[in-house]
Amino acid sequence: MTQTGVSFLFDLDGTLIDSVYQHVAAWQQALHDAHIELSVWRIHRRIGMSGGLFTEMLLREIERDVTPELLAQLHARHNEAYIDLTRWVRPLPGAVRLLQHLTRARIPWAIATSGRMVTAKYNLELLGLDPASAVIVTRDEVQRAKPDPDLFIAAAARLGAAIESAVIIGDSIWDMLAARRARGLGVGLLSGGYGQDELERAGAIRVYEDPADLLDHIDEIGGRA
Amino acid sequence: MTQTGVSFLFDLDGTLIDSVYQHVAAWQQALHDAHIELSVWRIHRRIGMSGGLFTEMLLREIERDVTPELLAQLHARHNEAYIDLTRWVRPLPGAVRLLQHLTRARIPWAIATSGRMVTAKYNLELLGLDPASAVIVTRDEVQRAKPDPDLFIAAAARLGAAIESAVIIGDSIWDMLAARRARGLGVGLLSGGYGQDELERAGAIRVYEDPADLLDHIDEIGGRA
Repeated sequence: MTQTGVSFLFDLDGTLIDSVYQHVAAWQQALHDAHIELSVWRIHRRIGMSGGLFTEMLLREIERDVTPELLAQLHARHNEAYIDLTRWVRPLPGAVRLLQHLTRARIPWAIATSGRMVTAKYNLELLGLDPASAVIVTRDEVQRAKPDPDLFIAAAARLGAAIESAVIIGDSIWDMLAARRARGLGVGLLSGGYGQDELERAGAIRVYEDPADLLDHIDEIGGRA
Repeated sequence: MTQTGVSFLFDLDGTLIDSVYQHVAAWQQALHDAHIELSVWRIHRRIGMSGGLFTEMLLREIERDVTPELLAQLHARHNEAYIDLTRWVRPLPGAVRLLQHLTRARIPWAIATSGRMVTAKYNLELLGLDPASAVIVTRDEVQRAKPDPDLFIAAAARLGAAIESAVIIGDSIWDMLAARRARGLGVGLLSGGYGQDELERAGAIRVYEDPADLLDHIDEIGGRA
């Protein structure tokens, strides 16, 4: 039976983990190796989308054909470069405390990431989460990633929670668009490096600095203990 | 005699050179070596300020005392890490063409950067500029860097141009604040990774994507040939 109470669905990179800038650097290196030079801010603005949409949009900007071989090469090189940069990746302030608060308050929560488990597993380790017990939906499990709503809908279904009363927390406009398309309530965090206005215009009902700031204001969005 | 016609004063990092994300990574490394862990987006949001203000604000956020030794260590380590990352730094699209256009149109232009010549010289090389002939004002030459107006005022003075008719182009809110405080006209670029709204709220009269986009619309801000 679907529960109608509040649930929390989290994006991972930039929302619980301070990894956006390392993903940006890893994509720059992957594109460079494929002889593609693209301004770094344009890469940053696309992070958090489905990897497929991401590379398609980037390559459209430089008017280069997207072959399956080029896509496979870019993704392999990005994964390799990102893993090399994980030594600079940290949990965001308050991320672990926020998840512990929700668990103690018996508020169901899940993680829904456009990334694949091969890179996400490093981030879950940093949060001290066991992929076997926490509810985590990755790109591997849905047909379409963000800004399509599938990841958040799948995460709510795994919790047995109604998507209409889910609070969907993310750092990018792709999270906020996916939240609206899923009919959930988008809440933005500045910790991925995007501006408050971008998140609000993409549908965020509230914007906080990072997980610590959200936890300080959790009564505003239904996360009472 | 001061000329009353239009002049163009440029910030360097993020405005003509795609180097903001490398500066962010270099600061993260420098802070880490001093056992300071700070979220990367907070570093990004401070880039482009005077190095002194930058480190003071960062250290205030983590409530650590700012000693002259710590500051010297941070700046030395940042310079070292940045120079190591310069292999990933490129001129922004249109930057070289934009400066050539202004030179051909006999519109005076200068560069005013909060950085010091020791790191700026790599960026000037990328633009094919000779520090001995182009007008470039660095942190070394003024008492206070951005968001204080001194750098832009000094650049206008070196051109013999009136600051009131100067177009001041930058990617960060610190450039826009310094432009207003100097009584010049701030024009924002998105190429440093900040949002359009942030730049407009800090006083930008117009925001373009990058130097190529500005050159396409240069008639809007007085850069006629």
